[in-house]
Amino acid sequence: MGQSEALWEPWILTRRATRENWKDISYVRLATDVGSFPKGTVGLADRIVYGYPKIPRIEVLEKGLRTHFTHPFWVEEKVDGYNVRVVCWEGELLALTRGGFVCPFTTDRAGDWIDREIFREIPDVVLCGEVVGPDNPYVISTSPLVERDARFFLFDVMRMGSQEFVPHELKQELARRFGIDLVPLYGQWTTEDIPRIREIIVELNRKAREGVIFKEAGGRSLRAKYVTASSDLSDIAAMGERFYDVHPSYFTSRILRLVLFLSEIGGANPLELETELGRALVRGYGKAVKEFLKHGQCGDEFRCRFRNPENAERLIQHLHKVEGEKSRTLVRELKQEGDFWVLRFYKVYSATTDLLRNLWEGLLRFD
Amino acid sequence: MGQSEALWEPWILTRRATRENWKDISYVRLATDVGSFPKGTVGLADRIVYGYPKIPRIEVLEKGLRTHFTHPFWVEEKVDGYNVRVVCWEGELLALTRGGFVCPFTTDRAGDWIDREIFREIPDVVLCGEVVGPDNPYVISTSPLVERDARFFLFDVMRMGSQEFVPHELKQELARRFGIDLVPLYGQWTTEDIPRIREIIVELNRKAREGVIFKEAGGRSLRAKYVTASSDLSDIAAMGERFYDVHPSYFTSRILRLVLFLSEIGGANPLELETELGRALVRGYGKAVKEFLKHGQCGDEFRCRFRNPENAERLIQHLHKVEGEKSRTLVRELKQEGDFWVLRFYKVYSATTDLLRNLWEGLLRFD
Repeated sequence: MGQSEALWEPWILTRRATRENWKDISYVRLATDVGSFPKGTVGLADRIVYGYPKIPRIEVLEKGLRTHFTHPFWVEEKVDGYNVRVVCWEGELLALTRGGFVCPFTTDRAGDWIDREIFREIPDVVLCGEVVGPDNPYVISTSPLVERDARFFLFDVMRMGSQEFVPHELKQELARRFGIDLVPLYGQWTTEDIPRIREIIVELNRKAREGVIFKEAGGRSLRAKYVTASSDLSDIAAMGERFYDVHPSYFTSRILRLVLFLSEIGGANPLELETELGRALVRGYGKAVKEFLKHGQCGDEFRCRFRNPENAERLIQHLHKVEGEKSRTLVRELKQEGDFWVLRFYKVYSATTDLLRNLWEGLLRFD
Repeated sequence: MGQSEALWEPWILTRRATRENWKDISYVRLATDVGSFPKGTVGLADRIVYGYPKIPRIEVLEKGLRTHFTHPFWVEEKVDGYNVRVVCWEGELLALTRGGFVCPFTTDRAGDWIDREIFREIPDVVLCGEVVGPDNPYVISTSPLVERDARFFLFDVMRMGSQEFVPHELKQELARRFGIDLVPLYGQWTTEDIPRIREIIVELNRKAREGVIFKEAGGRSLRAKYVTASSDLSDIAAMGERFYDVHPSYFTSRILRLVLFLSEIGGANPLELETELGRALVRGYGKAVKEFLKHGQCGDEFRCRFRNPENAERLIQHLHKVEGEKSRTLVRELKQEGDFWVLRFYKVYSATTDLLRNLWEGLLRFD
């Protein structure tokens, strides 16, 4: 403990790190990047779980690949959900969010998705993956890959204290041996295979899937992401109903990507895509207006299923804490259904609600 | 001169005002609001031409009108072009831009649009109006009210040294007597007439016109603007081709207005509006991409007609000066056609061009 205190203390004092608790477990999380430690890095006593690194984005596929990927690379599906790192600490599975908090929901359900046996064999293993499915506390529209409840898909494996990922083959081997779902894999390719990669992406776009991650095979940790037009559209539609709670560039950056996708990849009818973009925006924003006129506020209902009802309570406390003033989370119901406790809660989108309230009060705006 | 120097000097020293020249005439302009003087206020020797005040926007028509307009008000058309104030100084008509510069183009042409006789009768009159038409140096898409060249439409009359507008009736009388075009007028109404006002707006929207200005009749200077969905669409389409040279909220604020218009005013087929919005965005952004792929840069060609070719040269110098690093203006041609000198120039949209160049060089972006 003494050693870890010494490591974190200066960052806690300068508010770059915060001290947190999960039940009896005390941990420290980095609230920003600090040196080579990414935001979301977690200290558990004297162990460090590195934050999951940001993956840069390719906006022009062929040029982006040719410029950076000089070696063979794996093409993995980028599955739309939320990113967690699952570790085992003091005999309990803990799921850490991108920001470095223990997520009460994911931690509650981690045992449903991950065989603990892997932690007996490799106690300091860190399983990095995406939680996907409609019943989750964070994301409105996740991948159509999961139609109900939620599931975990592994995409990387680390060890505590190390920022490096284990080689692709070992990751596959571990997933297979311990029965952990992997994100869909579309093979190893080189830049000679761009026509084939394009086909993979066209097909993912057709199926309303988010996109792909390119991961260089072998030693270097070069990675890049590329998303489909249908992912841009579904993001735009989902965020439209809380348009004022996100930066305007959320929309404009996706509009650009959509147009770049159309110009480079195609595989979609341009006229249909125009209509779909307009529809996503008008209906997204329109939903906010309708919600406001009907209920006096804009928001969404979330639902998720717990094994332990105390974790539902912990989730609500966690959301209140991380959202601060900006969003308001209102519990609707917590009730037992079969083996689960189902929590329903409502998130108010405060900025969008406040703007619409001002406009409906007749506000004159200077712009 | 001594008196005016004393007035402006502290603002010049603090860079809130700048000293400018138009031929032999020296003037001072306010680069920002200073106390009760709006940005664009101009000092000509010891006279002051007040900046044209910002007009606040109503986003929800009925509520906005009912909240603020307790007295009868005039409904004038808001004509899409650019705002100028025309004065007479040392025997010459000068047209001042919103920012307080003498505009070489508008100054060149002011004599075509305005009978000097009004300045003989009222030497310190300030004619506030909109210059509209395809042949102008600033705005890509102006009101369909003017199909060729450019014209001036009067909407307000001030006097030098005063921030107040002359009463509506006097403005009309002056326009009639001196044959100056007025912006179209749609009568005087009260909030009891909102259904009728709505019809006016539906009709303007159908004709692809920008919107209306509400101006309280009588003493107070209460004003507000309200724009049509078709104006939002044409702005979005026009700015799409330089999407990265404007703030992203340029698009999102118009998308919101479009949805509010649809929800409150209607008069448009919602499905058509969705398609039109998608088309405006995809084709606007798409035009930038196509321009870049074809010419290595994004930009637009402007064309305007001068009486005096020296003023064309002055316009180019003026654009270089006010645009600074951000835009680049390239002269294409200046040639005589009948009674006019026709200037064609190209404006490079630098931020959009630079972004697309980076993407086509394979840039990996973290976001």
